[in-house]
Amino acid sequence: MSEPTEGIGDMSIKDEEKQEAGDEDDVVNPWEVATHSATGVDYDKLIKRFGSTKIDDALIQRIEKVTGKPVHHLLRRGKFFSQRDMHMILDMYEQKKPFYLYTGRGPSSDAMHMGHLIPFIFTKWLQDTFDVPLVIQLTDDEKFLWKDLTLEQANHMAIENTKDIIACGFDIEKTFIFSDLNFISNSSAFYRNMCRVQKLVTYNQVKGIFGFGDSDCIGKISFPAIQASPSFSSSFPEIFNGRPDIPCLIPCAIDQDPYFRMTRDVAPRMNYLKPALIHSTFFPALQGAQTKMSASDPNSSIFVTDSDKQIKDKINKFAFSGGGATVEEHKEKGGNCDVDVSYQYLTFFMEDDERLEEIRKTYTSGELLTGFLKKELIEILQKLVGEHRQKRATITDDVVRQFMTPRKLKFDYPPPTPPSEKKKKKKQKSAKAV
Amino acid sequence: MSEPTEGIGDMSIKDEEKQEAGDEDDVVNPWEVATHSATGVDYDKLIKRFGSTKIDDALIQRIEKVTGKPVHHLLRRGKFFSQRDMHMILDMYEQKKPFYLYTGRGPSSDAMHMGHLIPFIFTKWLQDTFDVPLVIQLTDDEKFLWKDLTLEQANHMAIENTKDIIACGFDIEKTFIFSDLNFISNSSAFYRNMCRVQKLVTYNQVKGIFGFGDSDCIGKISFPAIQASPSFSSSFPEIFNGRPDIPCLIPCAIDQDPYFRMTRDVAPRMNYLKPALIHSTFFPALQGAQTKMSASDPNSSIFVTDSDKQIKDKINKFAFSGGGATVEEHKEKGGNCDVDVSYQYLTFFMEDDERLEEIRKTYTSGELLTGFLKKELIEILQKLVGEHRQKRATITDDVVRQFMTPRKLKFDYPPPTPPSEKKKKKKQKSAKAV
Repeated sequence: MSEPTEGIGDMSIKDEEKQEAGDEDDVVNPWEVATHSATGVDYDKLIKRFGSTKIDDALIQRIEKVTGKPVHHLLRRGKFFSQRDMHMILDMYEQKKPFYLYTGRGPSSDAMHMGHLIPFIFTKWLQDTFDVPLVIQLTDDEKFLWKDLTLEQANHMAIENTKDIIACGFDIEKTFIFSDLNFISNSSAFYRNMCRVQKLVTYNQVKGIFGFGDSDCIGKISFPAIQASPSFSSSFPEIFNGRPDIPCLIPCAIDQDPYFRMTRDVAPRMNYLKPALIHSTFFPALQGAQTKMSASDPNSSIFVTDSDKQIKDKINKFAFSGGGATVEEHKEKGGNCDVDVSYQYLTFFMEDDERLEEIRKTYTSGELLTGFLKKELIEILQKLVGEHRQKRATITDDVVRQFMTPRKLKFDYPPPTPPSEKKKKKKQKSAKAV
Repeated sequence: MSEPTEGIGDMSIKDEEKQEAGDEDDVVNPWEVATHSATGVDYDKLIKRFGSTKIDDALIQRIEKVTGKPVHHLLRRGKFFSQRDMHMILDMYEQKKPFYLYTGRGPSSDAMHMGHLIPFIFTKWLQDTFDVPLVIQLTDDEKFLWKDLTLEQANHMAIENTKDIIACGFDIEKTFIFSDLNFISNSSAFYRNMCRVQKLVTYNQVKGIFGFGDSDCIGKISFPAIQASPSFSSSFPEIFNGRPDIPCLIPCAIDQDPYFRMTRDVAPRMNYLKPALIHSTFFPALQGAQTKMSASDPNSSIFVTDSDKQIKDKINKFAFSGGGATVEEHKEKGGNCDVDVSYQYLTFFMEDDERLEEIRKTYTSGELLTGFLKKELIEILQKLVGEHRQKRATITDDVVRQFMTPRKLKFDYPPPTPPSEKKKKKKQKSAKAV
């Protein structure tokens, strides 16, 4: 079920970058994404570097076959483009065996932008399609450690972001949202899994995987264990009835993969299953695909709190155009969809495949002007943000509290194998687990 | 109130050892104590190396003056020999301002030995004398990280050790005992202080202070923050009514000082008070003062679970003698109290100063034979262990549960300064705290 070459030894960012010398311009790690290419990061090279597997037509067809419905356009259009162990998850689903979803967010701003919504939009589709539990981690402790924020500020952002996440439409009976600062001091099972991971990963390894240095604080150095722990169902005894063996699927942007390569390496030594993954590309900044949209640069981002006017003004002013310099030049040479940010955004948010293809053709031919393309995008985003704003306004503190309470969800699990049975099974194994 | 040269920059074990070349044989860190000298570690050199202050007659007289009673024999006889900020604590006491005590234990064996009891015997005297709250930390997470133990085994040892600690006679209305594995996942305030410390200490610093290396697991690297956090009253809002400004005094063996040098360095940057310290010497192994008594070598230790016969046999067989090789030689040359382990143990456990002095004189002169000295010690230890055994047998699971429940103790504290007042005060400061 897992790639034979996978392991912590293969995970060094630095080693990989040395190996792939031609790739040196693409920086992809949990804290930075940057490339010199106007068409964005070279994702095929990234798959090779990270050792994951490209999502091919066969996998998409299998998903459509087992679920009996078309896949989400973000999957169909290659926005989710890479995976680990997705076939194992589909095997489980076909055999009517349980699995669960885990995704998360580092709360570094009160308002989320459109790029932040992508994994949640897709995760909601996965939850609706597969009818499984979902846990969402808000790493407010991480943001405290990395940013110039107090614990209280980071925790406040986590709660504000939770409202935006709930507004994406998650089912309260199937979803548990937690902030690390609140939950770790509320769950013995979670803290114990943190300790287990922390015992199995050395400083040398996190140095290699995440590029940490000797001047980094010890909080950063031990943090990866906190992002690893929700990958194990034993971290949530309330949800899984104490079962340590429910497989996990993690939808996330590809820059988070280092955490889960580490997690997949330690899992067998803890007698736990490796989490499966499905990776997305990055949502480009308004200025172009050289960087991802970043909340710290308001002009690079459309926020879910932006007014209709702000959305219109930002797109008209900042969205990088792949069109000609003049109307005449555009009509003659046509537009370049590969670098046009407005077109790229439409591929994320316009659901209608035929309409999107028509826009691509007429923009490429020069028939459709940049202004019309932007107008189309502005309408779609104003509608999407407007609906989000309405939904968010209905979310009371009590609803937030309910989502964030550790509890049984609507799924039932038979209790775990009793210790006596376990011992018999363990005796057959020679490997020693922590 | 604090030594001007103190700081993380001064804390490197390696640097200090380089500096003090003549001292290279004494290894003193939280995980190892060893010397080539039969009289044990050179404590005067250690005070210089660690930058603490020797307990002098003036301090002992001041303690007797402010408390109106003689000091404990462990203090009078130099078993507690070094300190930081003790005068500040006595100032507090004289001004009727509150402080609290914090001590702890790493639970690495089910049974504790006599050496383990020393800090608790002295801490009980401090609590009785000053009438203050006491928190006792059992670092079961530490033992999981360092030893070949499962979390469950380490946690079990913590609970068993708690029974022995309670048997030392601590007042349930003034004492809170906690295991890290149980409490960290039960206390948001504690976890948050852990995060704050973890943000302020770098890998370089823990490498210097504790000698950690690149192959150490990330759990070890971040652990020092867990031993630091009980030094701050804000970690225990139930006990201190949310007050972050109650000073802390830590009685501990000197090998634990690296943790608290680190703690004292970060405290001002957290707007917290530095903890005060009072350090003990090590309790020697039966075989001699070259090493401290260690639970991992049963022949080096008298356990609180040993029978009268085991105590007698171990002392007669293993206790290193400072006496002559034959009765004739002993009568001629006399015994050497400085290296005689039985005599050394008597200095820890025999309360009667006059009787102890008589033994010292007659053993040194050769009049008293080793056998009689050992007989005296055996009687004292059999009585002490016998009483401990009786007390421990009365400690029910319910009593353990009560001691380990986070709760208000019998002390009242006015609430902390309201945020509006704090802001005014903060504005006057320029330093920025985490």
